[in-house]
Amino acid sequence: MSTVYVVGLGPGAGEQMTVRAEKILEACPVILGYTVYIDLVREQYPEKKFLSTPMKQEVKRCQMAFEEAVKGQDVAMVCSGDAGVYGMAGLIYEVGREYPEIKIEIIPGITAATGGAAVLGAPLMHDFAVISLSDLLTPWEQIEERLEAAAKAGFVICLYNPSSKKRADYLQKACDIFLKYRRPDTICGFVKNIGREGETYQILPLEILRETAVDMFTTVYIGTEKTMELNGKMVTPRGYREMKKEKA
Amino acid sequence: MSTVYVVGLGPGAGEQMTVRAEKILEACPVILGYTVYIDLVREQYPEKKFLSTPMKQEVKRCQMAFEEAVKGQDVAMVCSGDAGVYGMAGLIYEVGREYPEIKIEIIPGITAATGGAAVLGAPLMHDFAVISLSDLLTPWEQIEERLEAAAKAGFVICLYNPSSKKRADYLQKACDIFLKYRRPDTICGFVKNIGREGETYQILPLEILRETAVDMFTTVYIGTEKTMELNGKMVTPRGYREMKKEKA
Repeated sequence: MSTVYVVGLGPGAGEQMTVRAEKILEACPVILGYTVYIDLVREQYPEKKFLSTPMKQEVKRCQMAFEEAVKGQDVAMVCSGDAGVYGMAGLIYEVGREYPEIKIEIIPGITAATGGAAVLGAPLMHDFAVISLSDLLTPWEQIEERLEAAAKAGFVICLYNPSSKKRADYLQKACDIFLKYRRPDTICGFVKNIGREGETYQILPLEILRETAVDMFTTVYIGTEKTMELNGKMVTPRGYREMKKEKA
Repeated sequence: MSTVYVVGLGPGAGEQMTVRAEKILEACPVILGYTVYIDLVREQYPEKKFLSTPMKQEVKRCQMAFEEAVKGQDVAMVCSGDAGVYGMAGLIYEVGREYPEIKIEIIPGITAATGGAAVLGAPLMHDFAVISLSDLLTPWEQIEERLEAAAKAGFVICLYNPSSKKRADYLQKACDIFLKYRRPDTICGFVKNIGREGETYQILPLEILRETAVDMFTTVYIGTEKTMELNGKMVTPRGYREMKKEKA
């Protein structure tokens, strides 16, 4: 029985990929994905069959993966980060209903939330919420409700897709919601091009983040009241230093 | 200048570790961590110096890492999953204030949220909240507030530390909160021993999850109203199939 593997490459692929993901890419004769991600792995495996589709052809890409698997070969569909976080893992199961003879396996990768956190220092540490500011698949009103709920309940917040040409002011709108519940000097941060050429990061107060333009290759972190800047890194202390004994 | 690397081993270490994490373990003469995680890597690197401390000695463990680094050698402090998610990344920066000459670098790993999601299928996919049910470092009232906020605002919810001997009924209490906002037949799931020997998973309705005992090596997922069971997997569709054009 052939398998379609959905492989998370981690941020920027290369060394941020897991050992397991690397072994699966080596073993699969066909590698398939969005053009940009295919380009990340093509050089490493010149002997493979590569297939790609541009963005907004996600269903077709999944069908292509199964059609290749039906021919009797294992297929690796590659995604940036982790396929299970705003990625293709869900859709592959949906399309897979039409191909019951093909096995599906998801190979996790480092998602931007944790990959970017490691660049900034240790911003997550506590309970956190991951929210995409893209309203392509979610109504903006629902996104606002989640921003509000997460800010109010004291989550560290990690924002995916914070901007695009058509949504230039969405991060500003999100910051206005956060400013209802958090101080203007709350420590925030963002990382651009995590794990790739041109990786940069910045740590800045919430009120300055509101005035800052970021692009779609950026992941944004909103600290809690306890988050601090420590030697140029963004750190949300977990509280080990004031740890009390667990209640009996 | 020596470096203390805080290395996320991923769930269960081994092949779920990134290529970069593996290279750093190979390069560091000293590997340090909680006893259980040291045992996961000791066999692979018999020539290293291994240091460990039991649980609840986190500050001491960080100090040991810096003391070894002060001797002029790089040190890898290992954590299960990702060091930035309820791990040691934050504390290492805090303790590191006393060792300004030592560099700190966080090497991200697959955290249980995404590692377990890959086992279950594709439960996260949409905006999600990660919440620990351990009240060792967070007051239970605050945990309840976050459970309530996340449930109300429609997040997929991933629960870490869902149980311990002293907190046998915490998952039940959490489910009672979810049942205020979600149907009793909401699709949920859990994974035990992610990436390790004895890995098992189960997909079940919220009302049954409420009656189910899980242990501390389990990660729990609460679906949204859209989450479904598809060929034995837990899938939260992202909506690509009903995708509309982005608004101009």
